[in-house]
Amino acid sequence: MTVVEHVDGIEEQLGVYGEQIRAALSDALPDGEPAAWLYDLAREYPARPAKFIRPALCLATAQAFGATGDEALGPAVAIELLHNAFLVHDDIADGSLLRRGHETLHVRHGVGLALNAGDALAVLAQRVLRRSLDRFGASLADRIASEFEIMMLRSLEGQATELGWRRDTVIVLTPEDYLDLILHKTCWYTTVHPLRVGALVGSGGRAEVSPMVRFGFYLGSAFQIRDDLLNLVGDEATYGKEILGDLHEGKRTLMLIHLLGAAEGADRAVLRDYLRVDRDGRSDELVAEVRSMMDRYGSIDFATDYATGIAGAALDAFESAFTGARRNDAYRFVQALVPYMLERES
Amino acid sequence: MTVVEHVDGIEEQLGVYGEQIRAALSDALPDGEPAAWLYDLAREYPARPAKFIRPALCLATAQAFGATGDEALGPAVAIELLHNAFLVHDDIADGSLLRRGHETLHVRHGVGLALNAGDALAVLAQRVLRRSLDRFGASLADRIASEFEIMMLRSLEGQATELGWRRDTVIVLTPEDYLDLILHKTCWYTTVHPLRVGALVGSGGRAEVSPMVRFGFYLGSAFQIRDDLLNLVGDEATYGKEILGDLHEGKRTLMLIHLLGAAEGADRAVLRDYLRVDRDGRSDELVAEVRSMMDRYGSIDFATDYATGIAGAALDAFESAFTGARRNDAYRFVQALVPYMLERES
Repeated sequence: MTVVEHVDGIEEQLGVYGEQIRAALSDALPDGEPAAWLYDLAREYPARPAKFIRPALCLATAQAFGATGDEALGPAVAIELLHNAFLVHDDIADGSLLRRGHETLHVRHGVGLALNAGDALAVLAQRVLRRSLDRFGASLADRIASEFEIMMLRSLEGQATELGWRRDTVIVLTPEDYLDLILHKTCWYTTVHPLRVGALVGSGGRAEVSPMVRFGFYLGSAFQIRDDLLNLVGDEATYGKEILGDLHEGKRTLMLIHLLGAAEGADRAVLRDYLRVDRDGRSDELVAEVRSMMDRYGSIDFATDYATGIAGAALDAFESAFTGARRNDAYRFVQALVPYMLERES
Repeated sequence: MTVVEHVDGIEEQLGVYGEQIRAALSDALPDGEPAAWLYDLAREYPARPAKFIRPALCLATAQAFGATGDEALGPAVAIELLHNAFLVHDDIADGSLLRRGHETLHVRHGVGLALNAGDALAVLAQRVLRRSLDRFGASLADRIASEFEIMMLRSLEGQATELGWRRDTVIVLTPEDYLDLILHKTCWYTTVHPLRVGALVGSGGRAEVSPMVRFGFYLGSAFQIRDDLLNLVGDEATYGKEILGDLHEGKRTLMLIHLLGAAEGADRAVLRDYLRVDRDGRSDELVAEVRSMMDRYGSIDFATDYATGIAGAALDAFESAFTGARRNDAYRFVQALVPYMLERES
């Protein structure tokens, strides 16, 4: 099977899960007042094109562990709504301009209303989750609610560290620092939590979910490194965010951390200046210079190889984490997500 | 009993509840990492001087309805933590400079880290609540969790309306619009929810809580109108926020709404200009002019009389809402909060 066929196959399956998720997502968003200042805003990001990788991973994992239908739909939709809440708040914190191919919420409506709509999305995520827990026993319900809370805190801890590195111009960073960051900021809610909750729901609470941390960490890292690479080399129309936006924001990606370790002499001085100024101080010329350094010092190749290595580790970790699962279509879908993380164009 | 004695008595009782609440609040805030970028920030507002009116109202109501000790402490602390989360986000939305006598969180740490710490406070509020629900039966626990969700949404709806009025320069507003706004934005989480949950906890779910909406609405309105008046006439050191800060922000208070209806001729044109510009365009001179108009047109007196009338209605509503309660110290404390709302200086 070629890469293109593999990507097409995965995207087709994502589409099937996606239809189910989009309908449930819409049901979870109320039609209350004030529509023009709150609930219409809350609908904007969830209505934009999205792949729904997180909720699809949760649904598929549940099915691999014994769910026969949409038992995990509530927890899955809660993850997607929370993801949208994070996007709104991250876009404010980063001063981002584009999200999923359109203006960010705060650019369109101002910081105050956008911030508030993000808060509402987080509340609605937790409402969907709570309402879905009735179908589980009290012990499993409590376990899932607690997993959701831990996941929210891990994500906020990661976001704090990333913003802290930028605010305090932290320069001495290793690839391990980066991986620890994305374990918190990205992997926990993107992969670890959907996997753990999916396995718990599918197995009625009986699955051993601790191996999901390792698998989720490798899978989510491959996802995030690819995401950061697409920000440098992707096509804006497909990718939906500003190309080079991360470089304008001074985001500590694996490529930037590699470059900080590799650059010498005058290049090193340019990098220090680049990191010290804020977004407005990072001119297109300066960003282009840092971008070209990444080619010269091999930072793009380094990150690409790193992601490939991590995807290999993810395949091994998948075998252990899914030992107790059925070998059905859902199982094969989760397995195929590993190479897909490296091949996707958006 | 003189006003001063009454205020002293209430503040003494608030101090007793406050000690209990401050200890539980501190326990609810974790010592995790990253401390410097997240958990230390989350502790800042809760550690500043505060009266804890909301959680004290919840504890006292529970005791009036049959609680013998701190049964309502978890829900009460959850309310206070959520209040702190709202303060952090409101300060960002309003561009406020001072909170509880010190710099606001975003002035001190930047918008991104402050926004994120506010998110963490909201998660921690819900964690405290969830952990406290074990002691209640499943049905009461579910009821309280649902009350908390509704309260969060009402508050966010109110915040959206207030920000929307300002962003869209909404000028035609009546006192009824204002009361509907503060029912959502302030009263629900400040009074209605603490009263309802207190009564539910105290009575083991048996109390009839619908009359609490009316009492809470009158009590909370008196509180909010007094708060807005203190922003115009208070002492900054006692009050802890910037005096005239609301006027700089263009906040639609009862005084401003009265003035919009009463002002004539050239004054009306000045007001329109004042509302149309943003915070930076509202010079000290312009703010002073609007402030002096409020004296000339009797807007301060209007709002003071309005608050007095509402406090009278609150005393009647208290009688109905607390019909089933015991006549103990906690009962008398809640009753005495009504005149206190009008007399407090901070």
